[in-house]
Amino acid sequence: MKRMTIKELIDQKPVDTTQNIKGWIRSVRNSKKFSFVVVYDGTSQENIQVVVDETLANYAEVAALLSGSAVSIVGKVVMGGGKTPALEIQAQSVEIYSKTDDSYPLQKKATSLEFLREQAHLRIRTNLFGAVMRLRHHLAMGTHDFFSKRGFYYLNSPIISGVDAEGAGEMFTVSTLATDITKSPKHKDGKLDFEKDYFGKETFLAVTGQLEGECYAMGLNAIYTFGPTFRSENSNTTRHLSEFWMIEPEVAFADLDEIADLAADYIKHLIDYALTHASKELEFLHKSEYSVVGEDHIDILKHVRDSKFKRITYTEAMDILSKIDPAVKKFEYPTTWGSELQTEHERFLAEEHFKSPVIVTDYPKEFKAFYMKQNPDGKTVRAMDILVPGIGEIIGGSQREEDLAKLEKRMDEMGMNKEPLWWYLDLRRFGSVPHAGFGLGFERALMYISGMGNIRDVIPFPRTPKNCDF
Amino acid sequence: MKRMTIKELIDQKPVDTTQNIKGWIRSVRNSKKFSFVVVYDGTSQENIQVVVDETLANYAEVAALLSGSAVSIVGKVVMGGGKTPALEIQAQSVEIYSKTDDSYPLQKKATSLEFLREQAHLRIRTNLFGAVMRLRHHLAMGTHDFFSKRGFYYLNSPIISGVDAEGAGEMFTVSTLATDITKSPKHKDGKLDFEKDYFGKETFLAVTGQLEGECYAMGLNAIYTFGPTFRSENSNTTRHLSEFWMIEPEVAFADLDEIADLAADYIKHLIDYALTHASKELEFLHKSEYSVVGEDHIDILKHVRDSKFKRITYTEAMDILSKIDPAVKKFEYPTTWGSELQTEHERFLAEEHFKSPVIVTDYPKEFKAFYMKQNPDGKTVRAMDILVPGIGEIIGGSQREEDLAKLEKRMDEMGMNKEPLWWYLDLRRFGSVPHAGFGLGFERALMYISGMGNIRDVIPFPRTPKNCDF
Repeated sequence: MKRMTIKELIDQKPVDTTQNIKGWIRSVRNSKKFSFVVVYDGTSQENIQVVVDETLANYAEVAALLSGSAVSIVGKVVMGGGKTPALEIQAQSVEIYSKTDDSYPLQKKATSLEFLREQAHLRIRTNLFGAVMRLRHHLAMGTHDFFSKRGFYYLNSPIISGVDAEGAGEMFTVSTLATDITKSPKHKDGKLDFEKDYFGKETFLAVTGQLEGECYAMGLNAIYTFGPTFRSENSNTTRHLSEFWMIEPEVAFADLDEIADLAADYIKHLIDYALTHASKELEFLHKSEYSVVGEDHIDILKHVRDSKFKRITYTEAMDILSKIDPAVKKFEYPTTWGSELQTEHERFLAEEHFKSPVIVTDYPKEFKAFYMKQNPDGKTVRAMDILVPGIGEIIGGSQREEDLAKLEKRMDEMGMNKEPLWWYLDLRRFGSVPHAGFGLGFERALMYISGMGNIRDVIPFPRTPKNCDF
Repeated sequence: MKRMTIKELIDQKPVDTTQNIKGWIRSVRNSKKFSFVVVYDGTSQENIQVVVDETLANYAEVAALLSGSAVSIVGKVVMGGGKTPALEIQAQSVEIYSKTDDSYPLQKKATSLEFLREQAHLRIRTNLFGAVMRLRHHLAMGTHDFFSKRGFYYLNSPIISGVDAEGAGEMFTVSTLATDITKSPKHKDGKLDFEKDYFGKETFLAVTGQLEGECYAMGLNAIYTFGPTFRSENSNTTRHLSEFWMIEPEVAFADLDEIADLAADYIKHLIDYALTHASKELEFLHKSEYSVVGEDHIDILKHVRDSKFKRITYTEAMDILSKIDPAVKKFEYPTTWGSELQTEHERFLAEEHFKSPVIVTDYPKEFKAFYMKQNPDGKTVRAMDILVPGIGEIIGGSQREEDLAKLEKRMDEMGMNKEPLWWYLDLRRFGSVPHAGFGLGFERALMYISGMGNIRDVIPFPRTPKNCDF
């Protein structure tokens, strides 16, 4: 007999037929003459209740099964009674693949998020992480759907990189010399001789795919990356990971306004896609005791999907912030022009002032990367950040400087070594056109939509300082 | 005026309307009273011919443009004459974004594949690499389409890893201690003290996502990874990369036969998806002077899509090979039972003996990883490889050993340290079920379908020994 998944069962509702399901036991409740065995298989947010009658040959063994045991069940599908009628299976046979005992870590009592992070190999078996990771899947599919339907080509930018593309220096070194440095070739000063390393030079894990994305936008018109990126900064916050996934579109012939529209449309599309494909998961997550949002979060998401994002300049943002009565909101960091827009400012603007996502544009050049297009004012660049309630910055983007002389001048001002980026400068030497792009932190988007409060709980196996288990 | 891409223009054929296109010049051919300017924008395999009349204000400047220059053109769309009528634009204005000169590296004369690899930031502007990378995009979309429609969930397995999952030792170390080892904490024996490294232990770039995939299959039923994987082996061949993308599905409750069916269906789906979405690209590639396949490759692909893959055991494969008359085919390596199936054997089976992809199953356990399910014969394991003409092995998979005692015994036999894999063994301790999966090297599939002969030419920025430019 061909097995049916629980998702197929719920979608197709084959009442009065005999079917085979396979899965794991969520709970067993024994009554006088039968047992209710609740089974999940991970294909759906919903479980299936199986009624096992005491007349079944291995009834005693089944009735004694503990949560997490694996079974294959053949039985008749019926519509059960009760207040909210649901599909049920009347078991004709229960085959047991494996039994858990009391040592199974996922007991009801022990399910703090901290504990579950230590059981990252098992936590996917909980309702909570099943919901998070199915939602993650749908947001990934929604991403490919959004960009491919708009004619963007998917680019796999390189992970091992020879350059520090953001100039921030927070990079992991990739090497085959480090394992046993006593045997590795070294310079006279004692440092490793990276010319003798695997790639013949010092290499790093990429912090962005943008620069290679620009190369490809100049050949394919519009591309997007969706891959892992890395930061070795020592940040132990609920919003930082050392390894995270980023989506970075890059569009030839586009300016900042177009890319800001694209970014807003993309966020709205992600929300819409989640509402369409993962409504049960969203409902479960927003109601969960682990959620940091209210049950009304789905209405907030719908509002965001249907509203026009506010758009202000950095100058306007500082103007708003500096006029806030300290009795209403006291900021830790200054709100004078030329100060950094801090997370407290970002969250105030999105959560309290506009109560919606807000796009901030035209930041002082000092806070932004070398490649951003310089405004005629000589002070600001064509950058934009999108801030959302509960998270702060979720997207950062810019129009890129397409003028070779201006770009080189800015790199010189910032004391950068232009030589390793000869190829990036070539894009301005040959066939240069206006272009723009942005980056979305996938996990931050997932936090925002799921209502989970810690970024470690929206990626399968989180990597953070001092933590690389599994 | 809203710009139209060339793909939109060709799809919609808005004859007799005025449109704006933006792109780069492929060639300019000057006639007496007008110029033919061929423009591409990367959205399509096809170019658009623009007719520029000498009456245009900046005619002289346009007529002098070189290949690679960037333009925005407004003009009337007409159906051109000639043997094969094609859309044409009669220019009303030509705005020039940027001009190339003789120093532009992509001149007609200098386009060997070796040279283009040194120009990996520019090669995407050629017809050839445009075709390869659009095909790559469609095969990626076809992958998500295939698995998500079958109810598989997309898993982002970790890239930075604490374990050597294949036990092959060919891994890159990831560290923040390597940059300047003179300042880094060391043990008394002079080796780096990885306990003081960023993650508190020695970490690597993952060679596979399979082990984490198994964790997630035990929670979501069926998952697939699609991400970068890494090997630090010193292989300078046309089929090896240090960084490549792999697709790894893992299915709970599946056995080897089911996973072999899934793998064959997936290859057929990739071919069908390419034929549907990238027919112009395939046609261009197979005809290209750089192709290692004939123009009939499209028929070969169609045959593979429509045929049942041959399925033999390793034992049967060796039996076939050992009976081949040396006058017909002389092998370098032995064909006795217990010898490795070498690339020459794989290619002979697929290319000459069966003339189709072939699935080889049940290999001697000595050649395979510790996690494969052991057959009752005590000698072989439930492994499978899929071999395709022109490439050899393209997929490797297996049913996994779900019995804890057998798995631990095998690890002991192989002298493995079980401690770092405690979490992997937990999958057999708690709720263990039969399960199986495979891995497809994305670039090898792309080589096979595109007919490109070097794996460096089917990934945007190849990483190989001594080569990590861009």
